[in-house]
This record gives sequence, structure tokens and C-alpha cells, in this order.
Amino acid sequence: MLITEIGYTTPTSVVIRGQDFSTQILGKMDFLDIIMLTSVGRTPTPQEKVMLNLIMVTAAGHGITPSVIAARMTLLGAPEALQGAVAAGILGGGSVYLGPIQNIAQTLLDISAQLTRDASDDEVRAAAQAHISAMAAQKKPVWGVGSATHQAGDPRVPTMRELARDNGFYGLHWRVLDAIGELLSEQKGRPFCANGAGALAAIVADMGISPALGRGLMLTGRCASLIAQLLEEQQTPIAQEMWDLVLKQDPRCGK
Amino acid sequence: MLITEIGYTTPTSVVIRGQDFSTQILGKMDFLDIIMLTSVGRTPTPQEKVMLNLIMVTAAGHGITPSVIAARMTLLGAPEALQGAVAAGILGGGSVYLGPIQNIAQTLLDISAQLTRDASDDEVRAAAQAHISAMAAQKKPVWGVGSATHQAGDPRVPTMRELARDNGFYGLHWRVLDAIGELLSEQKGRPFCANGAGALAAIVADMGISPALGRGLMLTGRCASLIAQLLEEQQTPIAQEMWDLVLKQDPRCGK
Amino acid sequence: MLITEIGYTTPTSVVIRGQDFSTQILGKMDFLDIIMLTSVGRTPTPQEKVMLNLIMVTAAGHGITPSVIAARMTLLGAPEALQGAVAAGILGGGSVYLGPIQNIAQTLLDISAQLTRDASDDEVRAAAQAHISAMAAQKKPVWGVGSATHQAGDPRVPTMRELARDNGFYGLHWRVLDAIGELLSEQKGRPFCANGAGALAAIVADMGISPALGRGLMLTGRCASLIAQLLEEQQTPIAQEMWDLVLKQDPRCGK
Amino acid sequence: MLITEIGYTTPTSVVIRGQDFSTQILGKMDFLDIIMLTSVGRTPTPQEKVMLNLIMVTAAGHGITPSVIAARMTLLGAPEALQGAVAAGILGGGSVYLGPIQNIAQTLLDISAQLTRDASDDEVRAAAQAHISAMAAQKKPVWGVGSATHQAGDPRVPTMRELARDNGFYGLHWRVLDAIGELLSEQKGRPFCANGAGALAAIVADMGISPALGRGLMLTGRCASLIAQLLEEQQTPIAQEMWDLVLKQDPRCGK
Repeated sequence: MLITEIGYTTPTSVVIRGQDFSTQILGKMDFLDIIMLTSVGRTPTPQEKVMLNLIMVTAAGHGITPSVIAARMTLLGAPEALQGAVAAGILGGGSVYLGPIQNIAQTLLDISAQLTRDASDDEVRAAAQAHISAMAAQKKPVWGVGSATHQAGDPRVPTMRELARDNGFYGLHWRVLDAIGELLSEQKGRPFCANGAGALAAIVADMGISPALGRGLMLTGRCASLIAQLLEEQQTPIAQEMWDLVLKQDPRCGK
Repeated sequence: MLITEIGYTTPTSVVIRGQDFSTQILGKMDFLDIIMLTSVGRTPTPQEKVMLNLIMVTAAGHGITPSVIAARMTLLGAPEALQGAVAAGILGGGSVYLGPIQNIAQTLLDISAQLTRDASDDEVRAAAQAHISAMAAQKKPVWGVGSATHQAGDPRVPTMRELARDNGFYGLHWRVLDAIGELLSEQKGRPFCANGAGALAAIVADMGISPALGRGLMLTGRCASLIAQLLEEQQTPIAQEMWDLVLKQDPRCGK
Repeated sequence: MLITEIGYTTPTSVVIRGQDFSTQILGKMDFLDIIMLTSVGRTPTPQEKVMLNLIMVTAAGHGITPSVIAARMTLLGAPEALQGAVAAGILGGGSVYLGPIQNIAQTLLDISAQLTRDASDDEVRAAAQAHISAMAAQKKPVWGVGSATHQAGDPRVPTMRELARDNGFYGLHWRVLDAIGELLSEQKGRPFCANGAGALAAIVADMGISPALGRGLMLTGRCASLIAQLLEEQQTPIAQEMWDLVLKQDPRCGK
Repeated sequence: MLITEIGYTTPTSVVIRGQDFSTQILGKMDFLDIIMLTSVGRTPTPQEKVMLNLIMVTAAGHGITPSVIAARMTLLGAPEALQGAVAAGILGGGSVYLGPIQNIAQTLLDISAQLTRDASDDEVRAAAQAHISAMAAQKKPVWGVGSATHQAGDPRVPTMRELARDNGFYGLHWRVLDAIGELLSEQKGRPFCANGAGALAAIVADMGISPALGRGLMLTGRCASLIAQLLEEQQTPIAQEMWDLVLKQDPRCGK
């Protein structure tokens, strides 16, 4: 049958996951509740909400990223279509930005699948080392650790780890990630610990939500940040100046 | 200077609106806080949060819309790019869907600009009637009232109105909207009261946030709902069936 | 009935506008033929093809535009989704870039609606002046003339005008555009003649194709140019360098 | 240096691949010329043009596809943004639709890398069988052959093969594809020959253009077909009816 379990509308009501939108949801659930209700069919616990907020606040809190440049450039050409500029920014959330949360979470799930919940530190380190070795053998990078911007370590990660601990979500997947970071730091002789994407992926994995939903939360957070950037662009535009700056690098343009 | 006031990153920190992301924001602010902090430079009051949640929960709580169909169809062709399917769904948030919140909020602001905050009911009705007459003269529809789906009235609006009242946001713009609804119901002889888009627009206007931000909140809420729909499509696909259903309408396809 | 007149597929054939794709179209029609066949139901004349090529070649022939920056930035974040980067670039084709072709063509059609096909030069100039005056009264810019980049005149326009003349498409709409350019150049005391967008719009109007199709041809041409830019980005990336360049403008980033 | 080799603009000229746009390109090159000039740095031969047209005409000639539904649904919500509806349609050109041309072409190149240009039929069949066996071992489907819609064989492929032959592009990659089709037809006991995507991929591989450009040509052709569909939607809308049809499948909607 061609239906969605998420919800439907009748002439007299709107129903979401079996609940009446007007009497059971509106004013009783917040945005995180409805995200979880529609996506996984239940509302989150207070501890889960702390984590969900952490994920989405991180996705929303940043300066000028490639997505932001794409969105502002799009608004320059199509100021009448805010949704188009948002969409252009969303489109950069692929395998290099935002998408890695999903892939790293899946990797942490895969590495941890062979471990019991009360695995010893040695077992965790052995699993972490096996992953590092496997990636080296395949000449693939190890994701989730190290940061080009923050050479001494991503400043957000210690807070993320602490919040995860405080709310009961520092589990096996965080431990694997941290073991990878420690091993690589030792082997490289310089800090190579968990980065923001890795920490968020560990949280997703330790919360037990699907990696795909983790990516979805990032995209929603990113959407909010694009709105903020585009509202600023409407008031104090910088896209034209960015374009001029790029053109100025080309000596052939003769100006 | 080519900078954004929203935030920036240094080798040792991330700064959003002058606050250190790791120590002042993470774990201390929720998603609505960061939306308002990045967009308007301050965090919302508890009453404002109730309203912001109402707006975003409404944007997120729905069944199969044209946006959802577009997003699911896109995932059918490009399952590897979740961000592309989300973007396709976002692109339908234009002048007919989601965008009207912005336009109606602006219209309510324009109508109310000539009224004082303590305008009498008669003054509000006169302004409402002037708008109805002006639209009729220009052969344009009056937005924000009436619903094709919910002929007897959008079931969500009474709850929205009550929440607005309870939190101090039932002001001049809501009164203008309700006056328009009453006048048109009288004149048409059938219910033609505030619809969901109208109610949300009145809330945006009475909160004093910009109509463009109102639209942005809707787009962010829509983003979340698209995620839920696309996660379901990954698990229980219906897009192919929708396509087959459409093709079956064409007798020439011979099957 | 839920069908498209453009075409359909059966178990044994593909039919486009009533023609069998395999025996009547493939190898017998070129890309411009199929564009016109699907869009307006007939193939173009050789003279029309010269003009269609001119429009699409112009849309495809350019260096780094805001659309290109948006597309390259998107590929940086999502290299696995070429279609996403193309879409991001397409999204900038709105009211400021590409879209104006449609609006200017419509404006030229409106101005010319009151003129006969053999209107005298004086009549054309009078209509042009009326438009200039109307825009001035509404404090709106006159589109289709003047160029920020090419102060002395868009170098492509004389060739476009000549090709239009040679193929029988220098008609009333071109004359109105050139009259606007001449009048404004006189009034401003500096060159303010037809620019690229204006010339293409005049061609669209004088060909008698719809302004919306004109815009569509531009979008298709733009699509081709984005492909070329993105293939280059895959081989010789510059997006990261563009981003670094932008970040370097912000003294707060401390590097 | 932050430049593109494709082109640039100066105050007095536009230059594409070293050629002056106004005097050497406009009116002298057609759309296929500029596509190849910008993408690979040279214009195509007449034989190559026949093939390029075949590819793009095929991408442009179709009825209602998932992309078309996505594009029309988007226009329903945002009729003011034609570019957004086109972008929504483009976004469906991923790993399942359009994208396979690139992947199959790459696969044909990989299979053929071990063969000499004058490989015997037996050698070609052996390479084809090795590929079929490898896919079976990995439980992956063999792409480029078989068609769900056209059970007896894609009616477009014989014409494509003939045109490839006539223009000197029936080479090693076509031979490998046809060998795969013959072997699978024998092994399955029913027609399982080259489909449209396979044939186009073979053409791309035998032309020696990059698989990524092959995909780009498809996206450009798709763009043109979306324009035709969207112009029809503007004139004779069917998107609302499609949506209603989908909603009608859900008995809970109560109507």
C-alpha cells in the first residue's frame, strides 16, 4: 500500500505517528521531540535531548564554510528564492563534509560489533589497532581523528566527551574512537585525537540511533546555519566581494 | 571587510557571536538558542521558545506533500546522495508552500503599520476590511485564511491561537488576521478563518522576528521532516510504486 | 487525464511528440531539434538553429561566475555527486543571472505590443522613451542595456546583432532594445547600449519563442558550462584555494 | 594560481580556451562545439558530433521519469523559480539514473584494458565472461544489459549500434558489451542484450571521451528535457493531480 507511517491529513485532523497533531503534539512537544517521533517513532529522553542538541548545535555553529559560500553565491544570482540558496548549501553536505558523521558512525559500529559491551581497554585498543592497520594496508585515511584547522586538537571535543559521559553516552564506540586517537598520536608523535566529526559519530553510535539519522541531524543543523548566513547576506552582502576577490587572482582579467 | 558577524574559527577555538563555542555554547545552549543566536544575535526567552517550537514542529509534522514526493523520487535515482534528496524537497518551499508564511507576515505587518498597539476592535476590523477590498480590487486572493483540505477550519489553528495567547504573543497581527477571517466568513457565508500558514505568520509578526526568519524556521523544520521521510524511504521504499502509479494513468503506455 | 504530450514509453517503443524515437528521431535529429520538438512540438529551421546555437553557446561560454563558484564549492564537500554540484550551479540562475533574459524578453514583447511590425523609427523611439520614463518614475532600473564589466559596450553584442540580421531575426524587439540603448547613451553621455542579456532577450522575442523557453535555453547552456568547470575541478581543483582565500580576509582567524 | 583554463573576461573581451568569443566563436561554433571546446579543449569532428547528438538526444527524449515528477512537484510549490525545479530534476541523476553511463563506461574501459585493439572475438568473449563471473561471485548485478521496461530488448539500441558503426565508433568497448549481452542471453535463456545505458556507455568509451564527460552530456540533455516538461507544466499542469492521486491511495485520509 502506498502510504507513509509518518503521518496523514484528514478533512478534520492531522495525525503524526498515530497522535493527533492539534491536541497531543502542538505545545506539548518541542522540535527535538517531533524529529525523533517522525524519524524513529518515539520521543527522546532528557539525556538524549542533551546529545541531540549537542549534535545540532555543532552543525549550526560555524563561520564561512564552502556550503556557506555556495549558498551566498546562489542568493547573489537568485535573491528571490531563499529555498534555492539553502538547497545549494545543503548540497555540499556529502562525503567530505557532514556525510562523514554517518560513515564514521558506521565504521565505529562495525569495529565494535566484535566487542562485548564490557570489553577491557586492551580489547578496545586491539580492535582500534586492527582498524588502523587495515586502513594502512588499503592506503586509506583513518577518519574521525586529527584536524587540519586545529593542529593541537579540536577544542570542542573535550566538552563533547564530558557531556557524553555526564549523560550516559560514553560507551564502546567513544572508547574505540579515543583508542584510535591515542594510538595514532603515539605512532605519529603529534596530537592526532578525535576531531569534531569523530566525536559526533561516536555520540550517534553510542546513542544507538542510525548513522543515517545522525547525518540527517547534521543536515538539519546545517540548514539552520545557512538560514542565519543568508539572512545576514540579505542585510550585509559579501558574495559580490567574494566573487571580485576570486576574479582579482586572475592576472588575465586585466584589472 | 569580507567577514561574517556570525562566527569564525581559529587554530584553538570556534567563536559564534563573540562567545566561545566550546565553553559558552556547547551543552549550555539548545538548538533554538543557537538558531536565534546566529540569526538575530541573542538567545530566546522561554515564551519565545514555545512559539519557535510551535513553528518548527508544525513545519516538521506532516504526511506526503509535493516536497516529500520530490525528495523520494530523487532518492530513487540517487540513493547515494541523501543531501540531494533533501535539497530537492527544500526547493519546493517557494511562493506556494512555506514561502507564504513570509509574505503573509509581511502583509500583516503592512496592514498593522497604520494601527496603534491598543487599536480598538473597530479599528482592526476597518483595517482588515480595507485589505480585503484592496485585494478584491486587484483581483488577488486573500492569503492566510481558508483551507482546501480542512473545509470547516484548520484543526491546528485553535491550539496555535491559545498558545500564542498563553505566551503573550496574541497581538495586533493576530487580531488583524482573525478579523480578516471573521469578515470573509460572514461575507462568504461559510467558514473562512485563519489557516495554518496565516496563524504561523501572525505568530512571526507578533513575535517581532523578521518574516524572512519565519520562512527560514519553516525551511529548517521542513528539512527535519524530509529526513524522516527519506529514512523511511530507505527502509520501506514507495517511490517506485508512486512512479508506476503515475505511468499507469497513461493508456498509451500499453500496460 | 494525467499524461504529458511530450512522450511515453511502451514495452516495444519510445515515442516523442508522436514520432518513433528509434526510427524517426535517433540519428535524424540533433540536440537543437529535440529541444524544440519536445518544447514547442516542431523542429527549428536552419536560421532558427543559428540563433538557438548563439543563445546556448553564449550561456556556455564564460569563466568564473558565482554559479561556478557555488558548483565547485559543492563538489568540494560532495565529490561523489556530480549532479549535486551541477544543481547548485543551476540554482544561481534566478532573477539576477540568466533569469533576466526571460524578463527582458517579456518587457520587449510588452513594449512592442502597441507597435505594428512596420513601425517607423520615430514610433520605436517613442515607445522606448515611454519605457525609460516609466522605469524612472517607478525608480526601477532599465534592464538589457549597460554593463559593469564592459564599460565601453559588451563586445559580444555587435556579433549577435549581425547574426540576427543575417538570419532574419532583427525585428521590432531588437529595434526597441537598440532605441533604448541609444536614448540612454545620449541621456547619460556615455555608452549604455544593449548588453548580452538584452541582445539574447531581443533574439528570443524576435524569434517568437516564449520568454520562458529563452530562460530554459540559457539554463541548458549553463548546465553544459558547469560540466566543463566541474570536470576541470576534478582534475585541477581550485575550490579549496578559493575558500582559503576568503578565510584569509578575516583577521580574526589568526593566520 | 587561482584560475580556470576554460575562460575569462576582460573589460573589452571574453576569451574561451584562448579564442576570442565574439570573433572566433559566436556564429562559428555550435552548442556541441562549445561543449567540447570548454570540456576537452578542442571542437569535435563531424563523426563525433553524430555521436554526441545521439547521446544528448537520448537523454532529452523521454516521458515521465522520477526526475520529471520531482521537477513538476517542485514547480507546484515554487512556480517563481524555474531554476529550482530544474535543479530538483537534475538531482535525480545519480547512481541509478544517468550516473550508470559513467560507471558502465568505466567498467567497459577496465575490462578492455587487457585486450588489444584487434582482439579476436574469442578473446572478447573470454573477457566478457570473466566480468560476468566476477560480478556473480560478488553477487552484484551486471549493468548495461537487460531492461525491465523493454523485455524483448531496448528498441533504441539497434539504431545506436548502427550509428556507431557508420561513424567509426563501434570498437572494442561495444564488442565487449555485446559479448556480455550474448553470453547472458544464452545463459538466461531470454533476451538480455545491451540496454540504452549500456549502449551510450559503449559509445562514450569507444569515442575516447572520459566517463565523467559522458555523464555530464547526459545531465545536459536531461536539463533540456526538464525544461520541456516544466514549460508544459506551466501551461497544462498535472503535478497537483499526481499529488491527489498519491493521497487517494491512503485509505486513512478519508476521502
